[in-house]
Amino acid sequence: MTKQVYAVILAGGSGSRFWPASRTQRPKQLQPLGPGDGTLIEQTVQRLLPICSAERMLIATGKHLVEATRKILPGLPETAMLAEPQARNTAPCIGWAAERVARIDPDAIVVVVPSDQYVAKPEAFTDALRRAIDVASTGVVVTLGIKPTRAETGYGYLHAGAAEAGVNELRAFKEKPNRKTAERYYQSGEYFWNAGIFVFPAGLMLEHFNVCLPKMGESLAALRAAAKQGADAEERAVADFFANAESISIDYGVMEKIGAKGQLKMVPADVGWSDLGSFQTAWELSEHDARGNAFVGDVEQVETSNSYVLDLRSGRTGLTALVGVEDLIVVHTDDATLVARRDRCQEVKQIVEALKAAGRTDLL
Amino acid sequence: MTKQVYAVILAGGSGSRFWPASRTQRPKQLQPLGPGDGTLIEQTVQRLLPICSAERMLIATGKHLVEATRKILPGLPETAMLAEPQARNTAPCIGWAAERVARIDPDAIVVVVPSDQYVAKPEAFTDALRRAIDVASTGVVVTLGIKPTRAETGYGYLHAGAAEAGVNELRAFKEKPNRKTAERYYQSGEYFWNAGIFVFPAGLMLEHFNVCLPKMGESLAALRAAAKQGADAEERAVADFFANAESISIDYGVMEKIGAKGQLKMVPADVGWSDLGSFQTAWELSEHDARGNAFVGDVEQVETSNSYVLDLRSGRTGLTALVGVEDLIVVHTDDATLVARRDRCQEVKQIVEALKAAGRTDLL
Repeated sequence: MTKQVYAVILAGGSGSRFWPASRTQRPKQLQPLGPGDGTLIEQTVQRLLPICSAERMLIATGKHLVEATRKILPGLPETAMLAEPQARNTAPCIGWAAERVARIDPDAIVVVVPSDQYVAKPEAFTDALRRAIDVASTGVVVTLGIKPTRAETGYGYLHAGAAEAGVNELRAFKEKPNRKTAERYYQSGEYFWNAGIFVFPAGLMLEHFNVCLPKMGESLAALRAAAKQGADAEERAVADFFANAESISIDYGVMEKIGAKGQLKMVPADVGWSDLGSFQTAWELSEHDARGNAFVGDVEQVETSNSYVLDLRSGRTGLTALVGVEDLIVVHTDDATLVARRDRCQEVKQIVEALKAAGRTDLL
Repeated sequence: MTKQVYAVILAGGSGSRFWPASRTQRPKQLQPLGPGDGTLIEQTVQRLLPICSAERMLIATGKHLVEATRKILPGLPETAMLAEPQARNTAPCIGWAAERVARIDPDAIVVVVPSDQYVAKPEAFTDALRRAIDVASTGVVVTLGIKPTRAETGYGYLHAGAAEAGVNELRAFKEKPNRKTAERYYQSGEYFWNAGIFVFPAGLMLEHFNVCLPKMGESLAALRAAAKQGADAEERAVADFFANAESISIDYGVMEKIGAKGQLKMVPADVGWSDLGSFQTAWELSEHDARGNAFVGDVEQVETSNSYVLDLRSGRTGLTALVGVEDLIVVHTDDATLVARRDRCQEVKQIVEALKAAGRTDLL
């Protein structure tokens, strides 16, 4: 029998590498970044619709983002929002989501995906997820392994083992490698990018929590018991759960541990995936003119190359004129303009820190 | 007897190297550029007040700029504005101004100064002008020679001859030199920057026009004759004069010719003068932080050096954040942002040309 499929979209990130586009109240996933249409979270929902109906999508996000997120996704039911009272990394919210689904159907398959990634080939992505769902339906946890297209040092890797019927054993999770190691990974063909996409039966994940994070597993059981006493009790229990939960990623907390025991499989996926981690990546993914420029907005240039302009101002009435510059990123919002060297745009985080230190919350 | 002093402020320039600050309807001289207070033309008027009362100042500017200029200079009389019906370079408008003054008093001394320059030492400037006025009062044309502070290739030079009592003979006008020649000029101590500042008796200048530009001299005589028939006749004659006048600079048309005949003297001046020719110069003249940055506006930076931010937006509410850039210029106006490599900011002219070609007059 085909299992029911639920999607859990992780939408709690702050995306400070995308300041000034990304803001506390409207972070990266709620912004129209990258080459796709609409906000990243809308693109994520669209991508998942072929394998999961809107009624079975859950959006795990911060309490302060629930309203803004709901507005962007009016097609989802009221109950879709899992509002995290506190940011506690990914393990607690995935545990909570698994518990919510398992309560309805412990055999249902849960697909966990980040909300702020870019996928160039959505159909190939759907196909890969379908294979992962099939594998997960046999009672294992599955992760997608993204086939590398370059020796990237900015991603974590999955070391794949033996393959059978399009599914690999998973030997190990690997941290972001240095340049030399990344080259070796890429040449070997045995390493895949870890996109943080996991597929598993809901009940099975709770069992893994009980083993790998027993305290959190216990709390999840308490949460279920409280939920039986009504909505108010559940709400209090959720607050309690997050207040006391360890802040830990699902990778460290569960996946690496079950991987080491051979309880995690990998489905390789060649889907044009990108974590869209910075404006640098956004520029890379964009269509370029002959000089390597990508412009979104009203731009004139003289002898400018390999540069990126992104005008996100509400009116978008202003001209941006570039003269003799190269490898530059210019981002306009209504209240701020970022001008950064393209290969250093990750350091925009330091601007965010400086603004925090100066108490300039209006710009955060 | 001390001669009356009139000032003629040349304010007809377009200043396209200062786009987007400088606009057709509000060019460079009407902008608060450089380190001084207020617009450049206000600074020019202030600088001249010690040697010339406001009632004897004339502003030569384009018809389309009269209203905007008048608003910036409410202290000048209505009659101060010499509205050029057509831009015809400097000789026609200086001839016209000399004629206007000579009509009142042919012995009066006329001081011609551009409206868009910067002077760091206004008192030294006044002193130099006083010396020039004294010399001119003996019946010669005088120009200020700015003592060079570096081997500048961007200015024209005056080759000074023998000096007597602080006044030099003038051997020759020299075009902008190449690097090597500029070094030689600078080392020799015989060359001075040509700032386009001239001092002369009004009637004498008309005589020089009659010799050097006889057709224009004739037209000026006709203009005077028409003026005697009333304001309407004068207005028609002015329109006629500019419609038919040769477009030629006072340097080429008159000064070089009388210089060759020994009829032009030079008063050296060490006054902290700059033509304020581009944003590059504006940055040079500004106070810098330890990293060589000069910021006018709300700016945060990370590892940014030798850069210049100039926020001229009316509200000036937006933050400009710079990350990892160097030698960059960022200029904001309400409808445009310029981002230029500092050493190439003169090429902003090409942006202006492109906007013209595209018919985007709102941005010009």
